[in-house]
Amino acid sequence: MKKLILDLDMGVDDAMALAYAIASPEVELVGITTCFGNVRVEQSAHNCLAVLDLLGRPEVPVYLGADRPLQATEPYTPPASTALIHGKNGIGGASVPASPYEPVGATSADGNAAVDYLIDAARTYGSDLVYVATGPLSNLALALERDAAAMMSIGRVVVMGGALTVPGNVSAGAEANMASDPEAADAVLRSGRKLTMVGLDVTHRVVLTRRDIAGWTGSGTMAGCAFASMVEHYIGSYEMNAPYLGGCALHDPLAVAVAVDPTLVGALGCNLRVDLLGEYRGRTICDERRLSDPDKSALVALTVDAPRFLSEFKARMARILG
Amino acid sequence: MKKLILDLDMGVDDAMALAYAIASPEVELVGITTCFGNVRVEQSAHNCLAVLDLLGRPEVPVYLGADRPLQATEPYTPPASTALIHGKNGIGGASVPASPYEPVGATSADGNAAVDYLIDAARTYGSDLVYVATGPLSNLALALERDAAAMMSIGRVVVMGGALTVPGNVSAGAEANMASDPEAADAVLRSGRKLTMVGLDVTHRVVLTRRDIAGWTGSGTMAGCAFASMVEHYIGSYEMNAPYLGGCALHDPLAVAVAVDPTLVGALGCNLRVDLLGEYRGRTICDERRLSDPDKSALVALTVDAPRFLSEFKARMARILG
Repeated sequence: MKKLILDLDMGVDDAMALAYAIASPEVELVGITTCFGNVRVEQSAHNCLAVLDLLGRPEVPVYLGADRPLQATEPYTPPASTALIHGKNGIGGASVPASPYEPVGATSADGNAAVDYLIDAARTYGSDLVYVATGPLSNLALALERDAAAMMSIGRVVVMGGALTVPGNVSAGAEANMASDPEAADAVLRSGRKLTMVGLDVTHRVVLTRRDIAGWTGSGTMAGCAFASMVEHYIGSYEMNAPYLGGCALHDPLAVAVAVDPTLVGALGCNLRVDLLGEYRGRTICDERRLSDPDKSALVALTVDAPRFLSEFKARMARILG
Repeated sequence: MKKLILDLDMGVDDAMALAYAIASPEVELVGITTCFGNVRVEQSAHNCLAVLDLLGRPEVPVYLGADRPLQATEPYTPPASTALIHGKNGIGGASVPASPYEPVGATSADGNAAVDYLIDAARTYGSDLVYVATGPLSNLALALERDAAAMMSIGRVVVMGGALTVPGNVSAGAEANMASDPEAADAVLRSGRKLTMVGLDVTHRVVLTRRDIAGWTGSGTMAGCAFASMVEHYIGSYEMNAPYLGGCALHDPLAVAVAVDPTLVGALGCNLRVDLLGEYRGRTICDERRLSDPDKSALVALTVDAPRFLSEFKARMARILG
């Protein structure tokens, strides 16, 4: 069975992505690496441990990763707009009991336990490993810089982030994960590492409504109540920011679903880069200098079988939320 | 046989597109409408007539169209950068004898002979008509505004312009034709009129080299000499502006080729809009409010069978240049 590592900046949709992964019999979740993004990295690790415990998988190790963008001198603190979307604690204000476990490693300028773990896992599992990053690509960029050969050996890499054919969500061009560390994203996309990009092109087409989650509280489980509370907050933020969608976008869960089943999306093969300057900073775009290169490192998801994914999502969530 | 109308702002690649159309037995070129863009509209009409005469089709009528963007108060004059690409006369400085014919209609605030003709042709030919616009979409926007029903009845509309997955060529986001009249382009793309967009996504992958055109002068015909002269100038501008392409992009000829044979490209169905403000002005992008609309008005070409197109292009040009 494929081994799965999730890289999370746990936010609400990251929590749903984690639940989706645990509910997927096709893969075995072996570890979680964390990154700054929707929350500070320490909060992400705390949230990951708490949600793992809530979902009955408290033993899955959680590694502290990048606490800041590659070029930053200070740890990253999310802007107030992010707290409005994901709640101050990152999981929509839901109160989930803390895990008895601690995250592995301390983040400092000298160490990144997530990167150490990721490289070790790549060496151990190689082509059997599936790696899904749902936040900024800082850990992946650092790992590629440290041991490109190991990282190239990973079987499948799926990235939630970017926007190729649709506008961004933090600017007209930039999606939040890419905008949070454009230099890291650009380094990853230019590295030659093959990956699938699951960006706003498809995640804005898989929308969860209040009606879809009505059953979660009815289950009477703590997990059901906590997830309903989180996602109600999340949907509320979408009703403010993007009411035309009619619910919340399932960004990170779709990335996990594509890692499990790539046939959920139709993709364009291309070579990507990220704009680093001016108003376009953070935009993902095909590299105009590599258009005719027959070797394409990225598959960018541009179409999605939304009904099939939503059906899978609801079924797996119902199974795990009880 | 399908009837073809070309809308040209005759530049060098427009001249090649016209040659390709005349050399295509699958369609009958019935008229040319003109627009400002690579040159002023009067120069475009003059160039169209001269090249028609050069290629043995002097009787094809040429209609004067929009001389300015929808919101402009003065006729459009191309910037110096455009003259560097297409030459001051729009056809790379090549001297082509003037046609004995005159364009139809005078451009003024009160009249647009191109729009009148296009609507008449739509009413006459309906689904048998193929319309290819290779410049700003001003005439098409005006025609849609004047008689949407007639314009909706046209069998196929192909637009050269835009850039969905690649950077623009006049800014990081905007392709030249869209940037020349963003309001017109936005109106067309939001109109519901079905069309195929052949943008930089694919035109930057079909590149003509100096070696490809070496035979044109050897033919000893006036047309061969004139086209070689035009295209040498055009390739020279690409060697300055985009040397990584290795030649000149066959923008407008590819649009005509796709109108003749849609199987040359692979396309994404979507609903487009054009950014009108700030640094993104002129960018084509999928409308974030219509992502889940099952009715897609645009097919955006994202992949192209470049070897097959280039082979067709060279064969047809060789046939017509003698």
